[in-house]
Amino acid sequence: MTNTPAHDPSLFTGLSAFPLTPLKGESLDEDAFVGLIERLVLAGVDSITALGSTGSYAYLNTDERARAAQLSVESALDIPVFIGVGALRTRDVLVNVASAESAGAQGLLLAPVSYQPLTDDEVFELFRTVTESTDLPVVVYDNPGTTHFTFTAELYSRLAALDGVASIKIPGAAASPVGWNERIGEIRAAIGGEVTIGISGDAHAAEGLIAGCDAWYSVIGGTLPAPTLEITRAAEFGNAELARELSAELQPVWDLFTEFEGSLRVTAAIAEHLGLVGADSLPLPVRDLDEAAKRKVTEVAESLDLA
Amino acid sequence: MTNTPAHDPSLFTGLSAFPLTPLKGESLDEDAFVGLIERLVLAGVDSITALGSTGSYAYLNTDERARAAQLSVESALDIPVFIGVGALRTRDVLVNVASAESAGAQGLLLAPVSYQPLTDDEVFELFRTVTESTDLPVVVYDNPGTTHFTFTAELYSRLAALDGVASIKIPGAAASPVGWNERIGEIRAAIGGEVTIGISGDAHAAEGLIAGCDAWYSVIGGTLPAPTLEITRAAEFGNAELARELSAELQPVWDLFTEFEGSLRVTAAIAEHLGLVGADSLPLPVRDLDEAAKRKVTEVAESLDLA
Repeated sequence: MTNTPAHDPSLFTGLSAFPLTPLKGESLDEDAFVGLIERLVLAGVDSITALGSTGSYAYLNTDERARAAQLSVESALDIPVFIGVGALRTRDVLVNVASAESAGAQGLLLAPVSYQPLTDDEVFELFRTVTESTDLPVVVYDNPGTTHFTFTAELYSRLAALDGVASIKIPGAAASPVGWNERIGEIRAAIGGEVTIGISGDAHAAEGLIAGCDAWYSVIGGTLPAPTLEITRAAEFGNAELARELSAELQPVWDLFTEFEGSLRVTAAIAEHLGLVGADSLPLPVRDLDEAAKRKVTEVAESLDLA
Repeated sequence: MTNTPAHDPSLFTGLSAFPLTPLKGESLDEDAFVGLIERLVLAGVDSITALGSTGSYAYLNTDERARAAQLSVESALDIPVFIGVGALRTRDVLVNVASAESAGAQGLLLAPVSYQPLTDDEVFELFRTVTESTDLPVVVYDNPGTTHFTFTAELYSRLAALDGVASIKIPGAAASPVGWNERIGEIRAAIGGEVTIGISGDAHAAEGLIAGCDAWYSVIGGTLPAPTLEITRAAEFGNAELARELSAELQPVWDLFTEFEGSLRVTAAIAEHLGLVGADSLPLPVRDLDEAAKRKVTEVAESLDLA
């Protein structure tokens, strides 16, 4: 079966920035959320993916997700917005798809969220069900660190053949530049030319882009769009040296991600330091970094002059 | 701090049977669910844990969980019912705690369900929050296969010191009998004498009970209470040889769990074979075993004369 995309493949290229979805108490902090979206619009990111992992989608109920989708599309002006629709239960995924459509999203991000480990066929059927239920293009979200599902090249291939699958968001992982070229080459061979490949795992984004990824699905880009855009543009212009240099300047941030249990809590702390979100903006049981760790984040933010 | 239990520690001993929560379409199959509970009452299990992993708790919304809690307590007569209250978000856990209390549950089962990997302190605070919100005793549910959270002995110890923590449900894992004694001894040293230890992982339950576990939190016991009660009683009477022999008779069932991605889909297939639940009773994206696998389950069920 040939995948004839009804969508514009260029939609899923460049920098897609993933904003936080800050809470205030147990409710969406709408002002802060809209502020984050407006900041991304001003910076000129290529697209916004709201309700990604960084946007705490898995913790929000279908009503909260509908509201966040609506706010993000309204605030994004002419920047395309993609909405994360994943949920443990297919029924809820479909509710999120409908609310993303109503909001005016231009794409969907879907991870195989699991409690019971899923089989390849179950994941395939999930994507088949979703792509058959909507005309919106879907980004396959491969994030084993949160879903604990491992995609094979064969499954990538089956999914890429579904009408409606437009892009694959692959996890970052340490690899030498040669390793990256091989890895992207293997994925490209599996999925063909019509489906874009986007790198996540911000520390590895420069290498991923240099090796041929079409997009960077970026956690930190949702809070620090300027330096991530510079890296993206350098790679797009074929200036690998500059892309690597700009990414290396952010090494202290990548190191914080490694030291403090991943990118989410560090990104929230940076956003709090910049006055973009309040304290305790994450959904419990996930908690803010402790004060000592926040001080360390502040030191890095100040030394790098992050803004 | 000394943990002075307000509850009867014997509540969390013996066989706690975990029924499926069958669906019909996207709704709770109430007749089938009540039938499963009544079957456990007739068999004389020591307690029923509804909405465990086998009961698909993670896939049901707070309304569905309130209804299942109510039905299970109503149908269980004088058998104590424990209710699984875990959820990705603490807010929803607390809603489930309140509905379990209203239903008349005698205990709660709580796993650190995660999307973003949780820290030890986050998990501790989750249990602290829940135990402070209710007088019901809480079973700490350690199930790394679904939560991907790894408990340390130190965290067990901190949790056991919380008023309200009554039992720890430990995962099954292959170990020699000597290994089991050491493992249970280490946990006992960490948690003290007031908190019971319950084994899960049905294939390893006999060894766990022989090594000193107080309870068996059993998947298959929710569907096949008779043979699981026999194993439990043999171990309780100190007849290790008989307990091992009876468990070995069920080896073909344990082998099905290994062959077909864990216990849930196999248990649903056994329940379907016995006419206890309909086809497609699991929450999508989780699917029934395929027809070939179901035939294999039927062969095992018939050869063992499971009823």
